[in-house]
Amino acid sequence: MSAHTSADQVLALCGGIGGAKLALGLYRVLGPGRLTVLVNTGDDFEHLGLAISPDLDTVLYTLGGLADPERGWGRAQETWQCMEALRQLGGETWFQLGDRDLAMHVERSGWLRRGQTLSAFAARAARQFGIDAHILPMTDAPVRTIVETDEGALPFQHYFVRRRCEPVVRAIRFARAAEAAAPQSFIDLVAGDSLRAIVICPSNPYLSVDPILAVPGIAAALATARAPVVAVSPIIGGQAVKGPTAKIMVELGLAVTNESIAGHYRSLIDGLVVDEADGADAARLDVPTLAVPTLMRDLADRERLAGDILAFAATLVQSSAPMRAGGRRR
Amino acid sequence: MSAHTSADQVLALCGGIGGAKLALGLYRVLGPGRLTVLVNTGDDFEHLGLAISPDLDTVLYTLGGLADPERGWGRAQETWQCMEALRQLGGETWFQLGDRDLAMHVERSGWLRRGQTLSAFAARAARQFGIDAHILPMTDAPVRTIVETDEGALPFQHYFVRRRCEPVVRAIRFARAAEAAAPQSFIDLVAGDSLRAIVICPSNPYLSVDPILAVPGIAAALATARAPVVAVSPIIGGQAVKGPTAKIMVELGLAVTNESIAGHYRSLIDGLVVDEADGADAARLDVPTLAVPTLMRDLADRERLAGDILAFAATLVQSSAPMRAGGRRR
Repeated sequence: MSAHTSADQVLALCGGIGGAKLALGLYRVLGPGRLTVLVNTGDDFEHLGLAISPDLDTVLYTLGGLADPERGWGRAQETWQCMEALRQLGGETWFQLGDRDLAMHVERSGWLRRGQTLSAFAARAARQFGIDAHILPMTDAPVRTIVETDEGALPFQHYFVRRRCEPVVRAIRFARAAEAAAPQSFIDLVAGDSLRAIVICPSNPYLSVDPILAVPGIAAALATARAPVVAVSPIIGGQAVKGPTAKIMVELGLAVTNESIAGHYRSLIDGLVVDEADGADAARLDVPTLAVPTLMRDLADRERLAGDILAFAATLVQSSAPMRAGGRRR
Repeated sequence: MSAHTSADQVLALCGGIGGAKLALGLYRVLGPGRLTVLVNTGDDFEHLGLAISPDLDTVLYTLGGLADPERGWGRAQETWQCMEALRQLGGETWFQLGDRDLAMHVERSGWLRRGQTLSAFAARAARQFGIDAHILPMTDAPVRTIVETDEGALPFQHYFVRRRCEPVVRAIRFARAAEAAAPQSFIDLVAGDSLRAIVICPSNPYLSVDPILAVPGIAAALATARAPVVAVSPIIGGQAVKGPTAKIMVELGLAVTNESIAGHYRSLIDGLVVDEADGADAARLDVPTLAVPTLMRDLADRERLAGDILAFAATLVQSSAPMRAGGRRR
């Protein structure tokens, strides 16, 4: 038995919809009090005077059992009366805010206005939703993802929602990331010996995971973590499952392959989980690879994938120590 | 034919529910483009980070045909999903904001944040709601009604909604009224010769009309107006129709009578409209009085009362010139 036997905690890094699905799988497989989710807040923005944190809310709604199962974002049984009334008033309605969802933004805005932190709000919301996991914004500072496109620099939601990812991406940057600080609880968790695995969820690596890694201290902490770091590729059968990942990869001059994904995470990961359809890629990758079904259609898929990832991570603890010592930890 | 033949405009001063009912009656009787409503904004407050103007919205919803016919405040077919979600989050829910109604506060807050005026917002909302009347906040400055009670000084909504008018009122004051300015369009309207009548609606004289009169220039403009000024008493059969009017009058040491109401408005009005049940009061009042049914249960009641008031005002134009010259205009 190794010292890792007592390590029962898991850290997941994620963005919105796809990432939250896996976070839910991990939460259900691990049980209460064992999961920390470090969530992208680069998509956050101020809209209609409200502080909106799309990925954070998706994770909270998903783990709280409140998420809409069809859309993936927002709340189940949502209504849209406020938006309809706003349209009648001639207000801005390009960013759809459901009536129930609005409460989250109103309440969060109040917390921030009173000088409280986004992480304190997230902890409170998690408690109110009965979630026994740590939902941690990547930082309490206002880091903002800016997409440089052929139409100029667009704040994330303007690129993603208003312009429906149509502009051609030239670069992605994370405004004010340099001044941001990683959460102390994340630093402590990664430096300690309670972690069994660190999972980078199959969120968009460029839009959803990179902002997390751009917060000073986060990438360095992952690179020196004792626990194995496993990324789950968002590619399935040579395509991105959902969203603009493939389009962006092409626009950034990258091949839409697991080699690109492995290359992107190379300095951080001990293993990559790819879809079974891409199992043949494994031979070409210079990182331990697990090929299993990664498409998460239902709750069973999420739990099974979570279990597969944790089992894979356990093998990396055993086998990869020499490689890790001489490999990514340099 | 007098010079007043061309005077086809009416100005109404009002607070919320009761006042808005009569404003609607006037609007329907007068037709498009002939009514200006000067609305109390002393009830306005900032709540959940939103700029809320209860009386202004009641007037806009009522004239726009959007008001809830049962409650009197808020919108018809309203839903309360956001409040329910806010409760789930542990947020403040003592002031109920409907989902459709929320759009008004969100949009107004945006206008104010961008440095635009409350009156510009009201004009826009009226246009969007298809209202062809001028809905004018009493001022664009943040005048706030403060109720001095046996529990201390309470901002209006805390007294009215949170504490349900239970504390004993000792005095009512209008914070920052001294620095406020009356709308120029109101000043011009009253100084011009297009006005056929000025109507003080049967809103609470102390809580809803006094804040309007506290804005520098408004009472003086009314006192020197050429058009007849008619107030409608909120007393019916020696009781206040609705709300805390009677309770407050008692607490302020006033008899709950039309004499008290006439006395309150004495320096401003040319005539008082009382309910038919209080017709016997007329003999004791030193102001021309019309006794007609003033309870407005349905639209027909509102239109009929509006017609009665306008006819009454027309008689005051003819008959009261000498009295006005020597009377209230001093």
